[in-house]
Amino acid sequence: MTLHRVIVVGAGLVGTSVALALRAENVEVFINDRDPRRIELAADLGAGTAAPDLTRLAELTETPVDIAVLAVPPVEVVSVLMASQRRHLAESFSDVTSIKSQPQADAKLQGADLARFVGGHPLAGRERAGPEAARGDLFLGRPWVLTPTADTGRVALAAVTELVQLCGAQPLVLSPEEHDEAVALVSHLPQAVASLLAARLRDIGQDTVDLAGQGFRDLTRIADSDPQLWGQIAAGNAHRLSSTLRALATDLLALADRLDDPHAAAAAFEAVVAAGNAGRLRLPGKHGAAREVFTAVPVVLADEPGTLARLLVDAGGAGVNVEDLSLEHSPGAPVGLCELLVRPEQAEVLATVLRARGWAVHHSGAH
Amino acid sequence: MTLHRVIVVGAGLVGTSVALALRAENVEVFINDRDPRRIELAADLGAGTAAPDLTRLAELTETPVDIAVLAVPPVEVVSVLMASQRRHLAESFSDVTSIKSQPQADAKLQGADLARFVGGHPLAGRERAGPEAARGDLFLGRPWVLTPTADTGRVALAAVTELVQLCGAQPLVLSPEEHDEAVALVSHLPQAVASLLAARLRDIGQDTVDLAGQGFRDLTRIADSDPQLWGQIAAGNAHRLSSTLRALATDLLALADRLDDPHAAAAAFEAVVAAGNAGRLRLPGKHGAAREVFTAVPVVLADEPGTLARLLVDAGGAGVNVEDLSLEHSPGAPVGLCELLVRPEQAEVLATVLRARGWAVHHSGAH
Repeated sequence: MTLHRVIVVGAGLVGTSVALALRAENVEVFINDRDPRRIELAADLGAGTAAPDLTRLAELTETPVDIAVLAVPPVEVVSVLMASQRRHLAESFSDVTSIKSQPQADAKLQGADLARFVGGHPLAGRERAGPEAARGDLFLGRPWVLTPTADTGRVALAAVTELVQLCGAQPLVLSPEEHDEAVALVSHLPQAVASLLAARLRDIGQDTVDLAGQGFRDLTRIADSDPQLWGQIAAGNAHRLSSTLRALATDLLALADRLDDPHAAAAAFEAVVAAGNAGRLRLPGKHGAAREVFTAVPVVLADEPGTLARLLVDAGGAGVNVEDLSLEHSPGAPVGLCELLVRPEQAEVLATVLRARGWAVHHSGAH
Repeated sequence: MTLHRVIVVGAGLVGTSVALALRAENVEVFINDRDPRRIELAADLGAGTAAPDLTRLAELTETPVDIAVLAVPPVEVVSVLMASQRRHLAESFSDVTSIKSQPQADAKLQGADLARFVGGHPLAGRERAGPEAARGDLFLGRPWVLTPTADTGRVALAAVTELVQLCGAQPLVLSPEEHDEAVALVSHLPQAVASLLAARLRDIGQDTVDLAGQGFRDLTRIADSDPQLWGQIAAGNAHRLSSTLRALATDLLALADRLDDPHAAAAAFEAVVAAGNAGRLRLPGKHGAAREVFTAVPVVLADEPGTLARLLVDAGGAGVNVEDLSLEHSPGAPVGLCELLVRPEQAEVLATVLRARGWAVHHSGAH
């Protein structure tokens, strides 16, 4: 290991998670934030040594640290990079924001030392923000895009790549433009769609709202995200995002036209759903493996403390590995449905064992 | 109880689930389907008595049954209703399809006895289809829309309302037009959006696909749905659906225009995300209550049989009711993160107890 000391500037969800991950690998970590309470919380969580005053960091470190991770909001990345480089905080610098082209262009314009900088973006996050939501395993197995350019120095790229690997993530090198194009589609467009759909709920009657089922909830879950952060992200990738929005609008209008033709409507919608089926098959599955198809063993549970635990103890007793599970609660009902997802060949034995132990198993078995 | 005998025509997910729910309430149920294997499976599941030949149903029942539930695909509802009424299968008739106006208008044109018919639509479903996915609790606490009109008789409405209540659902009376307007927004539009988004994955590089995270997955989960069924649904509500598609396209284009204006971009996107936050707050929560905010206690688990069971046993030992839980697996990682959702006042005690038992609890506590 060549990485010994890192400073994280910005003790939010991502910065604190990076710090926790590095601490677990025995890297010395210093934590800075504009807000002293966030520094304190992050330090309490074991994320490293509080470094509230960057002008005095040299007293703590004597020499520049290996990497400064700038985990600040998109609009602050360039100014924090310039200030950090002026102070010689670190040998190398990286950021973690979800837009790459524009900040790197701005940094170049402002005369940043880009040989020492590698743009980075870990594809990991949560709807919740702040150091209290941080987890050292946030990046485990997730892609972490690095966007070196012709300006990037070899030392900086090697150091930041090592940091990514220490966090347990998979480094993925893309150009800043490729990165921004990709996230416009898989991240920024879905955010816009989820928010626009959820916003519709404001203006309709409660009867209609009550008809919204799990599908609508899933589709709008990310609509709970932080407006201010997303305003910055969208503005930083505005032209690519507006292109994807227009492309989706074109798709929607084309489908609307075909729905208005009684002879074309059914086939057109069927084709769209079939295309969606095909697209979904390309998503990677659990543990990075090709998508595995598990069999669901549904069990109806009383909504009482300990019920689920007893169920899983009994499942464990059957020697079956529960790969995943989902809990559904019907509104107003005192029972819930738990679906245990297991390998297909284990479903029958699990159902049999659970039934023998008195569980209300709804698995129909092989027919 | 005045409901004694019901025939379910169509032993798919919904029909078989209705039959199971009614059997649990000691209603006598007959099951019919074009496919004898589905009848057999439904009967094996305890959904009632096989009635493979409707022309001979009289031999089984002597007199018409109370209600015939027509759980057939949208395009077959009217013809099955006409045939069932010609045979005097039942005193009253209802269907379960997710479009209401057009079939009712068609039935009227074809001279159906609409005094004996009440359109119905249980807002419950799954991505999986067929009797093997059926559950007697599918409708528990869910809304079940009924769409009586001026033609509907009192006896039919009372009977079908009782059936809905026996299935554990909440009857909700809307006009056929109100119903179709509502589902265009909360069900058909999300299906179109999810499918169109997922379809984009077909044409992009694997690098981009790999960047898709949980948000994209959630948004496209229902894109796994059945193309043929959805073609029929969309065609049956084509004009309302095309209007909602155009309205969303208008929203997308308006947002795209504002993103193209550097002075407006951030504020515009921020406003959209804030509007989505507000819309989400209107969704009903668990058990039909106002949305409760639970606190997540994150625990890192080894991905081994029995681990989750041991965790939940220890949580139960703390006397804490786990309201919900989610499991996340990082691709490529041998560990997963389990989030136990509990009432806020119980989070600290749960975290403390679990830590004392050696679990890797990542809950930060109160600060």
